[in-house]
Amino acid sequence: MEQLTSIEAQRGWSHARHAAGQKVVFVPTMGALHAGHLSLVEKAKASGGAVVVSIFVNPTQFDNPGDLATYPITLEQDLALLAGAGVDAVFLPTAQDMYPNGFATFVSLVGPLTDKLCAVARPGHFRGVATVVTKLFNIVQPDIAIFGEKDLQQVLIISRMVGDLNQPVEIQVGATLRDADGLPMSSRNRRLSVEGRAKAVSLPRGLELANRAFKSGEIKSLSLTEIVYNELLVHEGVEVDYCDVVSVRGFEEKEHADDSCVLACAVFVDGVRLIDHVLLGGPAILVALDG
Amino acid sequence: MEQLTSIEAQRGWSHARHAAGQKVVFVPTMGALHAGHLSLVEKAKASGGAVVVSIFVNPTQFDNPGDLATYPITLEQDLALLAGAGVDAVFLPTAQDMYPNGFATFVSLVGPLTDKLCAVARPGHFRGVATVVTKLFNIVQPDIAIFGEKDLQQVLIISRMVGDLNQPVEIQVGATLRDADGLPMSSRNRRLSVEGRAKAVSLPRGLELANRAFKSGEIKSLSLTEIVYNELLVHEGVEVDYCDVVSVRGFEEKEHADDSCVLACAVFVDGVRLIDHVLLGGPAILVALDG
Repeated sequence: MEQLTSIEAQRGWSHARHAAGQKVVFVPTMGALHAGHLSLVEKAKASGGAVVVSIFVNPTQFDNPGDLATYPITLEQDLALLAGAGVDAVFLPTAQDMYPNGFATFVSLVGPLTDKLCAVARPGHFRGVATVVTKLFNIVQPDIAIFGEKDLQQVLIISRMVGDLNQPVEIQVGATLRDADGLPMSSRNRRLSVEGRAKAVSLPRGLELANRAFKSGEIKSLSLTEIVYNELLVHEGVEVDYCDVVSVRGFEEKEHADDSCVLACAVFVDGVRLIDHVLLGGPAILVALDG
Repeated sequence: MEQLTSIEAQRGWSHARHAAGQKVVFVPTMGALHAGHLSLVEKAKASGGAVVVSIFVNPTQFDNPGDLATYPITLEQDLALLAGAGVDAVFLPTAQDMYPNGFATFVSLVGPLTDKLCAVARPGHFRGVATVVTKLFNIVQPDIAIFGEKDLQQVLIISRMVGDLNQPVEIQVGATLRDADGLPMSSRNRRLSVEGRAKAVSLPRGLELANRAFKSGEIKSLSLTEIVYNELLVHEGVEVDYCDVVSVRGFEEKEHADDSCVLACAVFVDGVRLIDHVLLGGPAILVALDG
């Protein structure tokens, strides 16, 4: 596995792959890798192209300096996992190379995709995501890029951006992986205590109960979100950032849910921010309901 | 000369050129072509690559709907000029293809490049320019793109953007062409009456007089701009939008000029907005000084 630590090295690697007639398949990450990331790598490998994974904790998408400072970094372990997964190259740019002095250009979206859910509590977050993803695409020049469905709003924003800016890359989405207790895999889960983890599982449990209610005929969005709130707010130290029913296309808030909707939720568990969602009418979340 | 009227056709053309080992050299325009544009085409031809010129009056860079509505359109003449100049392809996208319903993504810059000169009077203008140029680069995928120095702030903004976003294109700059009376060539000049044209020439005349004063030792920015104002404001129907001495690097306003500075000016002549600039200490503008 090649380690590419400069922008020029990454450009050269991608150029050589293309010159050899290969596709370049790209999985951007912020490191602290877990099985969810590895499932995206597996999807990338299955495409048959040369696979490159970036590890870059992007400062411009952190609205909160404390969150950036405590974001987990596990580089040695990450590299071992990627080598074991058969990745061809890993791109490890420095923050100084990515954001030199005088950096002044940003990519941002207007409208419903960026005025609700995570965009409200994290101003500037998606501007930082859109900007760094654009930069990475221009450097890596992938034919295919793979993102996790867990960060649903991010996936929808990136897909919109790629279409709007005519970026020559195909976006593929990998399914959310969950641990045995139902919690979606996330680098942030490392920051949960054992007690915090037990509380956090009330999020997927609430979402699954709401989806069951929807499948049984409950379509009032307020009733569905109330089910989630009831699961969450019995715990000390759990705060709800948002819990909303929105259409997947267009991100409109819906008073009455239908199966084009998602129930999406962000919570703080002992100060750790976690997000999860369920496609209403979609597959069940495997979570113990008697927790 | 191929006429490419869809995004897919342009992508296919560029792909074929690259597959044949050719460079793609790109001159983006808004049509209403004049000898200044053709000098950029000539520069493109000299690079030895396959040359594509786009003609697209980009609605997102017009802050004023009246200005968009009256922007000159001379397509048949433009196509004849480009064919005569030996251009290989012309890209003619539609506004609906470039900005489909739900379009939501913009590229914009923060800081000194976009908080003074033309950016003040034309809010959103450079956001529109940065966005459309990014889109055109992603569609055309040029190795080289050529812009006119006449739109100096635009050139500096695009160069900054290309670096910041790691866009894989080399920016080249073509010198400003002037008519025999000294007025820089611009599509907007067509909108001047004979009387308006006579007044407009006071802009390059003022800039040349100021540059002569600078070369003779006058470094006070206020004195230099006063020379320009004195030339301009003797005419009825001439309004000054801005007239400033700024550093080319960093676009700082300078109380005292040096030869890293530009004297840049925008005026309205009978309602037509014109811009011009001179690099202080740089080549003389050939303009009659007794007008």
